[in-house]
Amino acid sequence: MNHFEIVNKDKNCAARRAVLTTAHGKVQTPTFMPVGTAGAVKGITPQQLEKIGAEIMLANTYHLMLRPTVEVVEKLGGLHKFTGWKKPMLTDSGGYQVFSLNSLVKIDEDGVEFASHVDGKKMYLNAELATQIQNRLGADIIMCFDQCAPFPCNDCEMEKIVQRTIRWAKRSKEAHANNKQLLFGIVQGGINLSLREECAEKLIEMDFDGYAIGGLSVGEGHENMAKTVSHTADILPKQKPRYLMGAGMPADIIAAVKGGIDMFDCVLPSRNGRNAFAFTENGIVRLRNNVHIDSREPIEAGCDCYCCRNFGRGTIRHFFNVGEMLGPILVSLHNLRFYQRLMAKIRNALEKNEFAEWADEKLKNDSFNKAQDKC
Amino acid sequence: MNHFEIVNKDKNCAARRAVLTTAHGKVQTPTFMPVGTAGAVKGITPQQLEKIGAEIMLANTYHLMLRPTVEVVEKLGGLHKFTGWKKPMLTDSGGYQVFSLNSLVKIDEDGVEFASHVDGKKMYLNAELATQIQNRLGADIIMCFDQCAPFPCNDCEMEKIVQRTIRWAKRSKEAHANNKQLLFGIVQGGINLSLREECAEKLIEMDFDGYAIGGLSVGEGHENMAKTVSHTADILPKQKPRYLMGAGMPADIIAAVKGGIDMFDCVLPSRNGRNAFAFTENGIVRLRNNVHIDSREPIEAGCDCYCCRNFGRGTIRHFFNVGEMLGPILVSLHNLRFYQRLMAKIRNALEKNEFAEWADEKLKNDSFNKAQDKC
Repeated sequence: MNHFEIVNKDKNCAARRAVLTTAHGKVQTPTFMPVGTAGAVKGITPQQLEKIGAEIMLANTYHLMLRPTVEVVEKLGGLHKFTGWKKPMLTDSGGYQVFSLNSLVKIDEDGVEFASHVDGKKMYLNAELATQIQNRLGADIIMCFDQCAPFPCNDCEMEKIVQRTIRWAKRSKEAHANNKQLLFGIVQGGINLSLREECAEKLIEMDFDGYAIGGLSVGEGHENMAKTVSHTADILPKQKPRYLMGAGMPADIIAAVKGGIDMFDCVLPSRNGRNAFAFTENGIVRLRNNVHIDSREPIEAGCDCYCCRNFGRGTIRHFFNVGEMLGPILVSLHNLRFYQRLMAKIRNALEKNEFAEWADEKLKNDSFNKAQDKC
Repeated sequence: MNHFEIVNKDKNCAARRAVLTTAHGKVQTPTFMPVGTAGAVKGITPQQLEKIGAEIMLANTYHLMLRPTVEVVEKLGGLHKFTGWKKPMLTDSGGYQVFSLNSLVKIDEDGVEFASHVDGKKMYLNAELATQIQNRLGADIIMCFDQCAPFPCNDCEMEKIVQRTIRWAKRSKEAHANNKQLLFGIVQGGINLSLREECAEKLIEMDFDGYAIGGLSVGEGHENMAKTVSHTADILPKQKPRYLMGAGMPADIIAAVKGGIDMFDCVLPSRNGRNAFAFTENGIVRLRNNVHIDSREPIEAGCDCYCCRNFGRGTIRHFFNVGEMLGPILVSLHNLRFYQRLMAKIRNALEKNEFAEWADEKLKNDSFNKAQDKC
């Protein structure tokens, strides 16, 4: 049985409505995965996450291998028992954090030596280790170990990164030894379309369970991202899930779905929530702002989240003002629900064969695009 | 109709099982009120609090009058709309915090001048102001403005404090202007039993809706507390609720119920939860302890709280170790549920006419008393 079943294909763009089947259940795609870096989405219980409508959660291999270590996660019964999250999970390979969180990185053909950002301890990761660790953590979907390019990056350097990512993907696949887990390859290549093509073709030959597009949402901007995504997705096998890593703002997600992407993850809803920035259809609401001091309005009228049904902006502003944990918790809950509602609207438009039109409307809507302001 | 209906009176001690009726619903007593200092029990949503079994929540007048101010709470629709808590609420008068949180306190017969602990701003409270503020906040039960004694305190000074507390109680009653709210008098007098008697008698003449015992749990120790409570409660009217303010450890609560107390509040379950100290029948579990690193055991076997049903000690230890908010949230949830389970056991024993025996068993049980270790 195929683990990815397309329910509906949009007639006017590359978007598709599908169902992804994993060892811990099905995921309706396009889907958004909240990020539980160290095993928890910050401030949110798995129960709350499930109520928000999340169907799959991401955890970071890099963080977990440092603390509590893969041995401890194993002794605690694996990632699901450890986190208390019973639905599908995905782990990244650790590659991204190795490059983004550490200054002391030594990279060669075999792998990467780095100093832990926690205590400076020398650590090592390569394709085999990253795959073994993910096999042991036990997520439903695991990722190949790849090299992440800096941005900007010249073509010569990017070519080397792409070639190495291809060789590491092959080694990751060979090392993969847990057949309950799907293994995804990661296409690198920055915004260089021919390098993206080359990388994608080589990975497709290796026949992965799914394909991710890495190395975007790093500063290239919405247009470059959308163009690279749709060009790359177009080459990828139709019958396999496609995952755009680390994206992004609502408009990025809509454009990427249009380009044929099925899966997303991003820290924005939870991180912005902790900082009192709330997503709404009409733009970002900054809840520390004094204008909300005596407002009984919910963050977003009509939102069905626990926060909007029970709290006015004035209370939330007060919680941030006095340092009550409930402020970050409530706005994170709202933002995570906002993202799940966005994905539900996308899936709904796809089911009604109205997605391309709906997406274009959204993407040119001024007030919606205000929500894209950097925050 | 009487707002306090005794369902069952223990034959072998002063304990009683009763129902307290307020404008926002009924409360089964003996009851424990979680403390939502600034309008929220730290890290816990009202929904979670309700699921834990809490029926009444306390909020602090002092904190709310400083931030967001009574005007703002009023504009936000009053305490219930403001906090998102739909069940009964109680506010203290602000007196305790005025004395405990501020060094620059000037007290005279009229009231107390103090500097806000937030920004040093000069503030003033007296019986009329504290009552008016509580009338406007809109809790279901409000408290008289009293003077809190330091501990230790000599009899001469305590006598003055008791007399002033009596005069302030009279002024609080005269100022009270919201007939949806029950007003409780507060008996002061430290561990001086004749001063307690004097204070109680004068307050009883004023006919309050309920009576609190203040000025305990301040360092006098379990035996002194239990003795003072039972002596004082014995004088108080049988048909009115009795509230022991700020207590306490589980053994304090059991002893006080035995002495005839119906209501309790304390920050211990939430504060200890934030600090990784968990209450169990077998004593305090310190969750930062390395011994829990790979433990899949719940905090307390058989506990029905969300934390114990879904997380092992190893995960909780990890959350504290990496600074994940979920650590404090989960242990607070457990501790708050532990207190609600304790109250449910007390009520159950009372209903079965087994309370005095059950309480004595508990109070002499070694492993239970380990839970009384200072933490």
